[in-house]
Amino acid sequence: MPHTTKLGFMTGMKSEYTVCLIIIGNEILSGRTRDANLQYLADRLNGWGVRMREARVIPDVESTIVETVNYCRKTFDYVFTTGGIGPTHDDITAASVAKAFGVGLVKDQKSYDLMAARFDDPADFNEARQKMCLIPEGATTIENSVSIAPGFQMGNVFVLAGVPSIMRAMVDTLRNRLVGGAPVLSRSVGCHLPEGAIAQGLSDIQEGWPDLDVGSYPFYKDNRFGTSLVLRGTSDTDLTAAISAVEDLILQLGGVPIYEDI
Amino acid sequence: MPHTTKLGFMTGMKSEYTVCLIIIGNEILSGRTRDANLQYLADRLNGWGVRMREARVIPDVESTIVETVNYCRKTFDYVFTTGGIGPTHDDITAASVAKAFGVGLVKDQKSYDLMAARFDDPADFNEARQKMCLIPEGATTIENSVSIAPGFQMGNVFVLAGVPSIMRAMVDTLRNRLVGGAPVLSRSVGCHLPEGAIAQGLSDIQEGWPDLDVGSYPFYKDNRFGTSLVLRGTSDTDLTAAISAVEDLILQLGGVPIYEDI
Repeated sequence: MPHTTKLGFMTGMKSEYTVCLIIIGNEILSGRTRDANLQYLADRLNGWGVRMREARVIPDVESTIVETVNYCRKTFDYVFTTGGIGPTHDDITAASVAKAFGVGLVKDQKSYDLMAARFDDPADFNEARQKMCLIPEGATTIENSVSIAPGFQMGNVFVLAGVPSIMRAMVDTLRNRLVGGAPVLSRSVGCHLPEGAIAQGLSDIQEGWPDLDVGSYPFYKDNRFGTSLVLRGTSDTDLTAAISAVEDLILQLGGVPIYEDI
Repeated sequence: MPHTTKLGFMTGMKSEYTVCLIIIGNEILSGRTRDANLQYLADRLNGWGVRMREARVIPDVESTIVETVNYCRKTFDYVFTTGGIGPTHDDITAASVAKAFGVGLVKDQKSYDLMAARFDDPADFNEARQKMCLIPEGATTIENSVSIAPGFQMGNVFVLAGVPSIMRAMVDTLRNRLVGGAPVLSRSVGCHLPEGAIAQGLSDIQEGWPDLDVGSYPFYKDNRFGTSLVLRGTSDTDLTAAISAVEDLILQLGGVPIYEDI
């Protein structure tokens, strides 16, 4: 499906809304930290009818952040970023996003006052911490109920914290800011047949329901190999018919459909 | 540091070798499956003196794979891909990489014979399974000791399986195919000071050792907040001096350096 412009949703005529996630942080690329945000965000946005179409992990390098944000905000309906909005020298996301939009940084007074009130000794509200109240000119803040320092929305770009508990609290405030399509639903069934045995029949099912995304994923559990079949789409009727076809295929090939977590 | 051309390493004069990982699979973008390969690959390649500078998660869409592979193979010294080389209709990585290079697919006879020998009934070595022996013309196979079906190397692009156990077995055969720089070393120390308290001093340390990557990561463990400081670089001497400066900083601020896993 071709991408439409980022303002296409204003017509209300789009059938698909897309998002790209930009994960900002040397610690992910070095292998030190395993990203824990993509999965939560993808799942949450699916429920809001917004599909993650790409994700990029990039380093704490201004030129890379600027280029990536500018490419992605023109290509996808929404862009989410995680990471790089803390108080330290490697936290350069807000300044980089401002540069991508060609604007300066301004102090968000409300966040500043809320943060200042948390320190008994005003000296502890130092320059590093004050930096967390700077947002691009024209941006609106995204509330952070966990640790006060805000994220922000600039155009179709949503800038969130990298710490998972804070990221989740921020995302959960955004439902009313995102226009989405029909929620993406999924059905799955497993079997102990190998992927190679089921592949041809599954391909026929994909052809029969071109609007569904038919995925096949091998697994190894309790000393047995098997395959999980996952159907995704927005039509409950199609999903019900197609999952029934998959179950028939498994039985035809001598397998048994299994439904426990696989 | 500016990227050099992908053949720059032939002069032996490069100080940094870069890799981009392309994770191919709708199942990662939908949130169904959490990627388990980036971290292993980053860590392994760091040891070989090759730094992961970017990672992209893209869907099983031919045009996206072709564009992404072609951009990345010109921009980074090495490209690794994971996923999409199985027997099912959504496994389109080999065909897409061939298209990116403007070549056709050819049967790798050695892999074909090895796979054929695994089936008692020749009918079980069906078209879907035979597809796994097709590699781009001019590619060399990457051995798979777990399940036989190979990965392949085409130019500076290394195509690996998505199943972690198979991906790992493939990567571990590649040491002699990659030219790297000095291994990337790291040192870390934690403390129960908040990031905001340590930020200024840490920024000074980063300025003092510009060749090191000084990272700061908040944590929450055993009901206490704290910060992990991680230094990365290729000079053991620099790392020893800088980590000592970080320890001094922690002590100055009234903290205690901690070394257990944080």
